Amino acid sequence: MLDPFFKPKGVAVIGASRDPHKLGHGVVRNLKEYRYQGPIYPVNKRASEILGEQCFASISDVPDPVDLAVIIVPSKAVPDTLKECGNRGIRYSIVVSGGFSETGEEGRKLEEELKSVADEMNINVIGPNCIGTIDTHTPVNTTFVTGMPEPGEIGFSSQSGAMVAAVIDWARGAGVGFSRIVSLGNQAGINETQMIEALCDDSQTEVITAYIEGVSDGTAFLDSAERASLKKPFVALKGGRGESGAKAVASHTGALAGSAEAYEAAFKRSGVLQAGTMEEMFDWARALAWQPLPEGNKVAVLTNAGGPAILAVDALEKAGLEMAELSKETKEYLRSRLPKAASVSNPVDVLAGSGPGTYAVALDALLTDEHVDALVVIQAPQDWFLPASLAEVVGEVAGVHDKPVIASIMGKASVDEALSILHKRKIPNVAFPERVASILAAMLQRKEWLSTARNEPDLFGVADRKAIKSYATRENWPELLEAYGISLPPQEEVSTKDEALKSAAKIGYPVVLKLISDTVTHKTEIGGVKMGIEDEDGLIRAWNELEDAASKANTGMKGALVQKMLSGGSEVIIGIRQDEQFGPLVLFGTGGTDVELLHDVATGIAPLNSMQAEQLVDKTVAGAKLKGWRNQPEGDRETVLEYLMRMAQLADELPNISELEINPLYVLPKGKGAYAIDIRGTYREE
Amino acid sequence: MLDPFFKPKGVAVIGASRDPHKLGHGVVRNLKEYRYQGPIYPVNKRASEILGEQCFASISDVPDPVDLAVIIVPSKAVPDTLKECGNRGIRYSIVVSGGFSETGEEGRKLEEELKSVADEMNINVIGPNCIGTIDTHTPVNTTFVTGMPEPGEIGFSSQSGAMVAAVIDWARGAGVGFSRIVSLGNQAGINETQMIEALCDDSQTEVITAYIEGVSDGTAFLDSAERASLKKPFVALKGGRGESGAKAVASHTGALAGSAEAYEAAFKRSGVLQAGTMEEMFDWARALAWQPLPEGNKVAVLTNAGGPAILAVDALEKAGLEMAELSKETKEYLRSRLPKAASVSNPVDVLAGSGPGTYAVALDALLTDEHVDALVVIQAPQDWFLPASLAEVVGEVAGVHDKPVIASIMGKASVDEALSILHKRKIPNVAFPERVASILAAMLQRKEWLSTARNEPDLFGVADRKAIKSYATRENWPELLEAYGISLPPQEEVSTKDEALKSAAKIGYPVVLKLISDTVTHKTEIGGVKMGIEDEDGLIRAWNELEDAASKANTGMKGALVQKMLSGGSEVIIGIRQDEQFGPLVLFGTGGTDVELLHDVATGIAPLNSMQAEQLVDKTVAGAKLKGWRNQPEGDRETVLEYLMRMAQLADELPNISELEINPLYVLPKGKGAYAIDIRGTYREE
Repeated sequence: MLDPFFKPKGVAVIGASRDPHKLGHGVVRNLKEYRYQGPIYPVNKRASEILGEQCFASISDVPDPVDLAVIIVPSKAVPDTLKECGNRGIRYSIVVSGGFSETGEEGRKLEEELKSVADEMNINVIGPNCIGTIDTHTPVNTTFVTGMPEPGEIGFSSQSGAMVAAVIDWARGAGVGFSRIVSLGNQAGINETQMIEALCDDSQTEVITAYIEGVSDGTAFLDSAERASLKKPFVALKGGRGESGAKAVASHTGALAGSAEAYEAAFKRSGVLQAGTMEEMFDWARALAWQPLPEGNKVAVLTNAGGPAILAVDALEKAGLEMAELSKETKEYLRSRLPKAASVSNPVDVLAGSGPGTYAVALDALLTDEHVDALVVIQAPQDWFLPASLAEVVGEVAGVHDKPVIASIMGKASVDEALSILHKRKIPNVAFPERVASILAAMLQRKEWLSTARNEPDLFGVADRKAIKSYATRENWPELLEAYGISLPPQEEVSTKDEALKSAAKIGYPVVLKLISDTVTHKTEIGGVKMGIEDEDGLIRAWNELEDAASKANTGMKGALVQKMLSGGSEVIIGIRQDEQFGPLVLFGTGGTDVELLHDVATGIAPLNSMQAEQLVDKTVAGAKLKGWRNQPEGDRETVLEYLMRMAQLADELPNISELEINPLYVLPKGKGAYAIDIRGTYREE
Repeated sequence: MLDPFFKPKGVAVIGASRDPHKLGHGVVRNLKEYRYQGPIYPVNKRASEILGEQCFASISDVPDPVDLAVIIVPSKAVPDTLKECGNRGIRYSIVVSGGFSETGEEGRKLEEELKSVADEMNINVIGPNCIGTIDTHTPVNTTFVTGMPEPGEIGFSSQSGAMVAAVIDWARGAGVGFSRIVSLGNQAGINETQMIEALCDDSQTEVITAYIEGVSDGTAFLDSAERASLKKPFVALKGGRGESGAKAVASHTGALAGSAEAYEAAFKRSGVLQAGTMEEMFDWARALAWQPLPEGNKVAVLTNAGGPAILAVDALEKAGLEMAELSKETKEYLRSRLPKAASVSNPVDVLAGSGPGTYAVALDALLTDEHVDALVVIQAPQDWFLPASLAEVVGEVAGVHDKPVIASIMGKASVDEALSILHKRKIPNVAFPERVASILAAMLQRKEWLSTARNEPDLFGVADRKAIKSYATRENWPELLEAYGISLPPQEEVSTKDEALKSAAKIGYPVVLKLISDTVTHKTEIGGVKMGIEDEDGLIRAWNELEDAASKANTGMKGALVQKMLSGGSEVIIGIRQDEQFGPLVLFGTGGTDVELLHDVATGIAPLNSMQAEQLVDKTVAGAKLKGWRNQPEGDRETVLEYLMRMAQLADELPNISELEINPLYVLPKGKGAYAIDIRGTYREE
């Protein structure tokens, strides 16, 4: 649908200029210089030709074929110009001009005007305040930025124009090829999600990369991103992670699943690989475009020197990869072929005296070994053979195997030729061997996501579906949870001491007594929870203490909750929260009062299936403990997983519950169940 | 003392060769090509001259002056050659030849022979199996590696020859200057610690960098490293961190304070900045050599584009730095000078239309603002002014202020000239803005270390000093701890049920009963601990249960410990361990059975002063909790700090205790003390 932005039949440049210092000149120059093959129509009232192209006084004078207009006129003239384009029958426009919502209130109004013209005339707009588009295969370059990357497999969509300029410059220096590059500007028309779809549908783009500061619609993004990830690798760099952290709200569920966590959960769910830096993003993209995914996490390292290999091994281990245990055959073979002092265990060190021939033998043996899932080849600088010859060998041998190979031909001054050979052979190279680790970890992450991606959540029957809406609006959390199949311990709300005594007799000692008041959220902090009450005397004492605590905290005591006291289990937290962007989030972690201090919480996107629930739980220390730890017996992990899925379903079905948190969920030993002890939540009418 | 390795009066090359492919040729070539000004004496029986230098048949024929011999002869000839050098009066030798301990048993013997000749003849040896030395200021280059870095301020000592070769090649490409570079090889003579001393004493070296796989003597290293760090910045890259992790021993104190942790603690103690990668090491070194240290952690970011600044801010926050809050005056001034739509809050965005002039104004204002401790300048690629002109402006303005400035003139293809200007002006530049974060964090770490470095530990009087040795050898930990002023709860060891009843009556209920047996280390796991015993009936029940537990676990019950039961506090762990390299380590963290799961443990080097103890405690969640958390009252942090120092003193004074661990140390609320509940340890005769 967005093809004319990348494969236009003819391009009009409205605001084209003869002045080589103006942007309107640069666009015409780039179209010509980077060999756009279709007609170029500069629109400029006062010029007859620009760079040899005939000028037109107005867009209405431009002849066929023309389906794309690049607009670089003063911001106030943009809406009218866009209207003229619409009247001329042009349905695709890149608005380069700035002076819109990025400049304040006046600009915001102008952008609204731009939007309504675009809607009215049915024009797809990229921008305003953007740099434009590049397609290296067409080729077409509608930007004014000097330089054009080589044709390649990486598509890049950016919410920052500066990042596009930086990437173009960097790509030229690093010799990394791109398929499409697009700067989205203020996104008055086309947004990041639509562009991801376009990159997903582009056959020249083998890997999608994106610089994302925010998404326009979380749900749409999740859908598109997942569809894209299933088709090709998608690597994102999220800007504003720290900033979002600072905006963490006071409520602690909020603090734990703030916006940065929501993005992380969304990326993880939809198979998007989240890079930490620009360098990582393109390191990963290149490897994903060029090399097959590893079948597992066992890596072999081949080197001609110890030190650099040790650094690579350190980094690989830190990134969660493991050193492959080589087969007996491989080791014997290597022992018979390599120098006597060489190390034939992984990392395999052929020593400084070995050249491309020895590397070839070892490469082939390691790639043949079935215990090896991926190979890292390191060459420390030496003077006696050309690095280019090793590059040829690595490219050739890697080409006949179906395992990923990453090279680290080290150095800077002496390896240019080797790098261009490796690039031709599609072997990624990094100057410092430590960088291989995050690359392979990202490839493995994708491999795992692809093998476990399954979209359908597990859904449960809900008792009393008619009543649930009313439970929610009245914030009657106990009834709501029970309707969703989540158990509460035997308990009763009471208003007087006498009722409490009767209730405790019914439930059976030991019991817990909890203050009910309208104003207190963290009851334990004011002494509003009395545990381990063994008998009537204890209950009376506890009641009186609650009354004291309430009056000390200046809150009214509406009554108390009498609850069966459980023991021999562990405390976890299960929470849900509506995220502005991605809708319902689910969180799981260590419960009790330590929740904030330990930061042992994992966040996911609702709804969940059992695999997703397991992944969430297994990411936390609380989850590890459920499998049994020291003297603690195995917890009822099955029930926890089920409750997580049930809570996720609840979050998905009742989006007006802005947050709901069970803390603690008391988990008894395996087979004995789990009980929601404390529940806090907020219902918000739309 | 090691001066002749870097400023020789004359150099003999024994094993010099006419064959340009031989190492013995490369050394002569490098001496000549990189302009060594003293006499060069190739020693070769069969040649009359090499590269225009007269050859000598034997080292004894070489005339004065000569104080350094570079030896590249077959390994078996090395001892005799070295002896000839000694007879000729040469006291400094670089043995390049390989074929020693790196090749196995035979080589190891040869290396021993080399060592004894060196000792006998009083020769300082670098190597064998090394690459040699470079001093760019003398200049002298005794290596055979092509290329010579520019003169600069960074000294580099490496336990890997390949890393030296890689650094030489990388330095040439990156334009980073070095003062001295040395490859230490097998360290038969000069070791890493002696070389650090030499770099510390070298006036041309302003920053020490080192690639370290291990240290020869931990205590000597600590001393030298601390002395060096006080004089100049010292950045180390440790190889083999992951590997060490894999060697973690079964005992859990060992697992928590394994060798990698010991190195980390040693580096921290002695002010050594531990880099994570090669790139980081030299990023840091350059900034430390060129820029002043920041006074605090408040950073201002100046940019011409939003995206790259956001990525820098994310990275800065993640590294623990904070965004400076600009003063009202600064903001007003910027508002009056910058374009209308510019952001005058930090990060300050001058927008894409601003050039070096606007940058200059903003730079000066930000560096003048007293709330700003450090400045990051970002320039996203643009086409309308030369990056070199911005480089001049940054260099000039930064030069009149005394705050660190790090630049990120982005891009690769178009910024070479700008980079050489920045280098000339001593402003570090990184291609990706995220990299500024770790640089500034390292500078700040040094600043903090320098301001808190204080060598003297706090020492305590020890009661009963005569008896302590006998407590230790008998592994009588309770008596030993009490002698060192660490309290135990009221408790008594008993052998029979009757004794237990009497003892409990004396101590007062509630009590805890703990199994005593010779074979069980983790008592709780077999049910060997009974808590909360309220009365005689309970005690009898508990005793019988312990007997059952002991027989189920197939261990004999020697008796039990009756202990006062404490409540209302929290559990921490304090441990000491003798490290092979660095001697006594102290560890502190979350106690109880969660210790391994949470990994909430910090490790330091004993002995400690109060500042060091505080730093250790404050690094952990357990430490944060001691300051009061939610409903938990403030713990007796003072006592914990004191006990840590006392334990550290104990570790220092009794090195035969290979490990000793208090877990839990039960910490009561502020002012109420702390008690060693469970103690495990091992005494090892030498």
